[in-house]
Amino acid sequence: MSDVENRLSEMKLTLPPPFVYPNPSRTGCIQVGQFLYTSGHHPPANFGVAVKGKVVADVSLEEARKAAKASALNILASVKQKIGNLDHIHRVIKLLGMVNSSPGFDSQPEVIDGASDLFYELFGPERGQHARSAIGLAELPRSTPLEIEAIFEIRT
Amino acid sequence: MSDVENRLSEMKLTLPPPFVYPNPSRTGCIQVGQFLYTSGHHPPANFGVAVKGKVVADVSLEEARKAAKASALNILASVKQKIGNLDHIHRVIKLLGMVNSSPGFDSQPEVIDGASDLFYELFGPERGQHARSAIGLAELPRSTPLEIEAIFEIRT
Amino acid sequence: MSDVENRLSEMKLTLPPPFVYPNPSRTGCIQVGQFLYTSGHHPPANFGVAVKGKVVADVSLEEARKAAKASALNILASVKQKIGNLDHIHRVIKLLGMVNSSPGFDSQPEVIDGASDLFYELFGPERGQHARSAIGLAELPRSTPLEIEAIFEIRT
Repeated sequence: MSDVENRLSEMKLTLPPPFVYPNPSRTGCIQVGQFLYTSGHHPPANFGVAVKGKVVADVSLEEARKAAKASALNILASVKQKIGNLDHIHRVIKLLGMVNSSPGFDSQPEVIDGASDLFYELFGPERGQHARSAIGLAELPRSTPLEIEAIFEIRT
Repeated sequence: MSDVENRLSEMKLTLPPPFVYPNPSRTGCIQVGQFLYTSGHHPPANFGVAVKGKVVADVSLEEARKAAKASALNILASVKQKIGNLDHIHRVIKLLGMVNSSPGFDSQPEVIDGASDLFYELFGPERGQHARSAIGLAELPRSTPLEIEAIFEIRT
Repeated sequence: MSDVENRLSEMKLTLPPPFVYPNPSRTGCIQVGQFLYTSGHHPPANFGVAVKGKVVADVSLEEARKAAKASALNILASVKQKIGNLDHIHRVIKLLGMVNSSPGFDSQPEVIDGASDLFYELFGPERGQHARSAIGLAELPRSTPLEIEAIFEIRT
């Protein structure tokens, strides 16, 4: 097992099965040289809490933060499927965190911290600290409460 | 004529004239090394169907999907203007598809598939499959129904 | 003083103190090779005009354009903190300008021009012309009227 997956186990976390794209035109990640770009990822379908609707009208901030953490694990599942071993991630470069926001909700950073803090704890300060935007969207596919895309640097 | 443009002809598609930016600070694409980043592109002004307003209140899903396909052709017109020959596109890396969404509309992926499926059919599985986010925006410039930006890998 | 900062002085502009991130998981910019990715930046807290709420219901287009210019300076302050000298910026690659938009507001490009025109004037046509998307968001953190993220090419 890889160091990153050992660390996930220590954190009592497991990767979900990678998302299966319904359309061959799309995939979870594309690597070009040292850069790996991911698609926007949602919390997995079997994620425990209510995962439909807008933050904070339908989904509480605390649930949304957990959904962000689950989305980060979903991203890692896609990356593992693509590159085989999460130890090949040299660093997290950037996240774009998009929160399905009810009118007046303006705490998007606290929601996306669920993903940012996971990456930081998992990869440590040198490899885990990243650039980020956390923004409020009007609507998201399947009324998911949030969607996160990432750029990673991969060891080549 | 390039292979990619021959293929466009076989698909009965033609490139629109490239968008003329009103302000010298901006351009359709910037290439750095093997990466080419595009601006957000709309459907061209002379595009056939109603192209103002929100999906699905003002623009149907089927019209929006055609508008996404037209925006993809608009992107290719910018790229051709920049790099001269579309055969220099090694692969599609990522799309960000932004749909001007009326309240409750959550089928953004089906809209942006109009662009994704065009790129996939045009470039084939190896070069055309890409990462993507398809999201719902509150408002877009000139009330366009959608805007798409792309990252391509260019042969250098 | 660097050439870029001399030019800022000629333009009667000064850099704000760089934003201090409240959480160690995040930082203002990450550089990988010749690419530098920034976080989304807001106008600084001490920025002179009203900087809360939606464009154009709460913040006028002219105020928003000034807020975009101030956000661009905020980005440069982060970049300087990261790479030490703004002369190391080889070019502006791309901006994503996100405007907190009230219903029906569709002049996002004119708002984000406040940032684009600053970069163009500061770096000149060769280094300052960039790709861009300017879009309308439903909500943004702390009800800021806009947020801008940038990608720069850095001399290595």
